[in-house]
Amino acid sequence: MEILSQHGCFGGRQGFYRHESSAIGLPMRFSVYLPPQAAHGKVPVLIYLAGLTCTEETFMIKAGAQRVAAELGIALVAPDTSPRGANIDGEDKDWDFGVGASFYLDATREPWSRHYRMESYVVDELPQTLAKHFPVDIGRMGIFGHSMGGHGALTLAFKYPQRFKSLSAFAPIVAPSRVPWGEKALAGYLGDDKDAWQAHDACELVRTLAEPYPGEILIDQGLADPFLDVQLRPELFEAACDERGQPLTLRRHAGYDHGYYFISTFIEDHLRHHARQLFAI
Amino acid sequence: MEILSQHGCFGGRQGFYRHESSAIGLPMRFSVYLPPQAAHGKVPVLIYLAGLTCTEETFMIKAGAQRVAAELGIALVAPDTSPRGANIDGEDKDWDFGVGASFYLDATREPWSRHYRMESYVVDELPQTLAKHFPVDIGRMGIFGHSMGGHGALTLAFKYPQRFKSLSAFAPIVAPSRVPWGEKALAGYLGDDKDAWQAHDACELVRTLAEPYPGEILIDQGLADPFLDVQLRPELFEAACDERGQPLTLRRHAGYDHGYYFISTFIEDHLRHHARQLFAI
Repeated sequence: MEILSQHGCFGGRQGFYRHESSAIGLPMRFSVYLPPQAAHGKVPVLIYLAGLTCTEETFMIKAGAQRVAAELGIALVAPDTSPRGANIDGEDKDWDFGVGASFYLDATREPWSRHYRMESYVVDELPQTLAKHFPVDIGRMGIFGHSMGGHGALTLAFKYPQRFKSLSAFAPIVAPSRVPWGEKALAGYLGDDKDAWQAHDACELVRTLAEPYPGEILIDQGLADPFLDVQLRPELFEAACDERGQPLTLRRHAGYDHGYYFISTFIEDHLRHHARQLFAI
Repeated sequence: MEILSQHGCFGGRQGFYRHESSAIGLPMRFSVYLPPQAAHGKVPVLIYLAGLTCTEETFMIKAGAQRVAAELGIALVAPDTSPRGANIDGEDKDWDFGVGASFYLDATREPWSRHYRMESYVVDELPQTLAKHFPVDIGRMGIFGHSMGGHGALTLAFKYPQRFKSLSAFAPIVAPSRVPWGEKALAGYLGDDKDAWQAHDACELVRTLAEPYPGEILIDQGLADPFLDVQLRPELFEAACDERGQPLTLRRHAGYDHGYYFISTFIEDHLRHHARQLFAI
């Protein structure tokens, strides 16, 4: 693992790292904020999945989360939003597919299936890498994310609840099988068989899981979000959770859009939501 | 004045604007954060001057200041760091001179003297523009900044203490006459007569002002800042303030570098420093 840079931040350390990922078959970058408490022992860890076009830097630069993480004693981790350098024809042609737009799944369709394996990376390799190199307790790990990353957080937590013990999202894509961003990505990465899409659709997963996700889910959504009605459709997830008996707090905020000024406003609530669950373990 | 974008943020509004500047003779961009209290009346205002290569966006994206400004009821304003589009030969050749590197003075040397008039812009035109378009009280206005912007804040507050009633800086350039960044900029914008440089050198100004600046100055400096010993030299300013009887709190922080992870760590202290002075008026 290569250290790209490290910076003092709220008494802890903000770092950027690169490693050779065996799951992805390419170098991957990620960022870690270690709170001051990590100097004295292992701390819980919270994985953040960013949205379309973002990188491992976006959240650490824009969300203002380190202040609260330093108070609570939680490490923050953000992987990149896709493999880079796969050299697949057209991989950076669109901003909503390919580079910066992995949708956090393991692609099954050629040519994406070789490197676009972000589900394996986020669920297995990244936590193992963290456990090896940082004073974090991956037995107390939560996950959250924004937009495409909210989709990633919801679907991965539903599929791996023993791995991700707390869950929240900002303006997530909750029904990718039924919205344009998701249809394009799922068709591209998985092919046209829509049955295969269901395992990557939060609304479908919440209906079909053997057990509801063990813990309250917190979602914040801005009502001035330009993607609300066509791409995000939180009412579909609300209905699915109602139907399934899945505890959900969905907060709608007038005047807030899809960007990090929205996220930064509510980030403290999310970190406290995760802390309540991770420190209760 | 053209609205480029506006975003809900901590109960207030983060906006980006463009206007035709008569001081600069070109369009200029600036950003304004209005706290929720601005819905009910005029609020004090705090001008932030950013460092080399930055824009009117940098501080608003990276510093995490809106949360505290919303609590205190202070508007935040950040102008761009230079004119853009002057079409001066070589204006974007160097990152430390020309575009993104105005040093917040009125250039006297051709060809810079026509457009590079940031002192007039920040001291007069920007506050008048704010007073005209936003619910801010420019009679209760403070100034702060980072690096080159710390230089701008110190020199402009010293020259216009009736305008800027509170003052602080992060890792400022305090002695531009004696450090490489400053020597290049002052020679380029003002010419080789070093007597003319003194009016733009905080260490010289603090020694020669008729009266000390009326109020405590807060400066934070990281000890892991790679520019500390060659470009910043806070000990020179400390000595000048000592000599002059100028109240100064200079805090040195082990492990912090020159970037916004450092600034975000201490931004709350700066806003509270300014609030104490601006709300006492």
